[in-house]
Amino acid sequence: MSLFDETLRRIDPLDRDAAAAAARRLDFLTKPRGSLGQLERLVCRYCAIRGNASGIIAAPAIAVFVADHGIAAEGVSAYPQSVTVEMLRNISSGGAAISVLARRFGYTLRVVDVGVATDTSRSPFPGVLYRRVGAGTRNFAHQPAMSPAETRRAIEIGIEIASELAGGATLIGIGEMGIANSTSAAAILSAITGLAPIEVAGRGTGLSDDDLRHKIGVISRALERHRSALTDGEAILSALGGFEIAAMAGVCLGGAALRVPVVVDGFIATAAAAAAERIFPGLFDYLFFGHQSAEGGHSRALDAMGVRPILNLAMRLGEGTGAALAMNTIDAALDLYRSMATFESAGVSEKIK
Amino acid sequence: MSLFDETLRRIDPLDRDAAAAAARRLDFLTKPRGSLGQLERLVCRYCAIRGNASGIIAAPAIAVFVADHGIAAEGVSAYPQSVTVEMLRNISSGGAAISVLARRFGYTLRVVDVGVATDTSRSPFPGVLYRRVGAGTRNFAHQPAMSPAETRRAIEIGIEIASELAGGATLIGIGEMGIANSTSAAAILSAITGLAPIEVAGRGTGLSDDDLRHKIGVISRALERHRSALTDGEAILSALGGFEIAAMAGVCLGGAALRVPVVVDGFIATAAAAAAERIFPGLFDYLFFGHQSAEGGHSRALDAMGVRPILNLAMRLGEGTGAALAMNTIDAALDLYRSMATFESAGVSEKIK
Repeated sequence: MSLFDETLRRIDPLDRDAAAAAARRLDFLTKPRGSLGQLERLVCRYCAIRGNASGIIAAPAIAVFVADHGIAAEGVSAYPQSVTVEMLRNISSGGAAISVLARRFGYTLRVVDVGVATDTSRSPFPGVLYRRVGAGTRNFAHQPAMSPAETRRAIEIGIEIASELAGGATLIGIGEMGIANSTSAAAILSAITGLAPIEVAGRGTGLSDDDLRHKIGVISRALERHRSALTDGEAILSALGGFEIAAMAGVCLGGAALRVPVVVDGFIATAAAAAAERIFPGLFDYLFFGHQSAEGGHSRALDAMGVRPILNLAMRLGEGTGAALAMNTIDAALDLYRSMATFESAGVSEKIK
Repeated sequence: MSLFDETLRRIDPLDRDAAAAAARRLDFLTKPRGSLGQLERLVCRYCAIRGNASGIIAAPAIAVFVADHGIAAEGVSAYPQSVTVEMLRNISSGGAAISVLARRFGYTLRVVDVGVATDTSRSPFPGVLYRRVGAGTRNFAHQPAMSPAETRRAIEIGIEIASELAGGATLIGIGEMGIANSTSAAAILSAITGLAPIEVAGRGTGLSDDDLRHKIGVISRALERHRSALTDGEAILSALGGFEIAAMAGVCLGGAALRVPVVVDGFIATAAAAAAERIFPGLFDYLFFGHQSAEGGHSRALDAMGVRPILNLAMRLGEGTGAALAMNTIDAALDLYRSMATFESAGVSEKIK
């Protein structure tokens, strides 16, 4: 059996008993019932995914996948394609936003080149894992971005990374970098949610009104061209996706199989999660959506899929930065859950009415 | 000149140059312009308050003020008054939610008894500062909660605590504990914003529909009784306030005088900030509103005052817990500001369109 099939086979239902046990314990803690609000829901779901009510969290990790996109040739990004490899170096040398946050929170940062146009694997950047599926995808304005075999390979890379990280981590964040990947993500989210490209596509790294209109046109025509091929999650990824998007979908699937919750970053990572949910319906139960991005129709797409993000800080940077801040929130919620006194242990009186 | 008058006299305008310098530096960092969203606005305002663009943050501290309320006799809380002193002990011994968060984030926690009904100062709880103005306020259903002298004393205690903490801290969070204080806070917010009690009052620690109706009635009648006395910020505090609310107002004023940003917690702390802004119009420039509480009309009150909170996690616990999480966000934003590479230092190409 392939790693892909084996992974899907291993995804079990959530542990509702663990969630119920966590909810009971939360009610014993010295606070009005439910007063930790969303933090309490995060704790219960974390326990349900992990399959126990201990609330223990170990060595959170963030996986950042970096790749290039053929669609960049259509002039859909405000930055040149060279920025992808430049940012790969910047992330690896500690200067990118995600580098700063991972260091600050003490989270493992795994940076993976899954297909940057410029191949640096011969004189590798320190700390970068090279798992290159190709030197960027093809231009999906004219042909499928990836072959079915490439898509499967990228997904399995994500599963492998999830598996490796899950050796230590009980919480994994996903992030990405790849010039033009908001065009790919918008196309995927449009295909999956049924929202029109104009409702989903955004300014990415900072397009003008004219450039945004052009980007929407590119997406609309591409969706038209590929329409008959958009039959399932993998097919959607092949037609419109990117190596890093498929790899993030793989982490979502792999995390679920290993009972390790995955925290989804912003717009691009949400496209990956949406494709993964198409591959395995019900997968969202295993994911946390970290934040509502300011990019394009992220909030509309989240609404359409019925999910609610943890934070809303109007960020639109990617790299896993929103996921990292959300992981820090989950981490704090679990600390409260494990460390607060109970009414009994603290000798605090209970509710009288 | 009194400490109170001296403090008001020392509050200067924000440093707009520092904010502009911070905004310029943010645009050099390796990220699309503005893509850190609200984090960038937090950085600029922090620098404007501090009066320099270094973005350095030192030893954040949280001050939690604890006191009792005469209005508790009206049956407006779901918990008995004894919980105030029990929670004072719980906070001091490390079992309360704010104890866990302060420990986790490495923030100084200053717990101050400004007037708990049960006087424990003779066999003091470890780590608690005793600055008791009285053994709880009077019942404002029948008379002013505090005398003008008590109000002034409580405000000055807050100023003193701000001053003491500002010796090391460049960011101060405020929180509180006091059975029935959401009734006092709702009355104050209603008096200041003009919103009706029914729009502002909430379930506090967990009232039923009937009990909430009763609470709203108590507040409405009290506002009626004290109406002619509600002439300014101090008078509103005297009539409807609490020792801990006046003390938190004092921290807001003291922080501004010392150019140390103060992070306001939820519903009760917002009432304190609103009273402080009445005392010194424009004071909100010096404050961060940490989170939108799930309590009653907190979001309505914030809207009415034109302020936007940092987080919205549906929490309604108080103690400074929302402030602590927001401080951790400001802290992370400043770390990004100070530690990220610039386009030049990282050799990353700039925008092309």
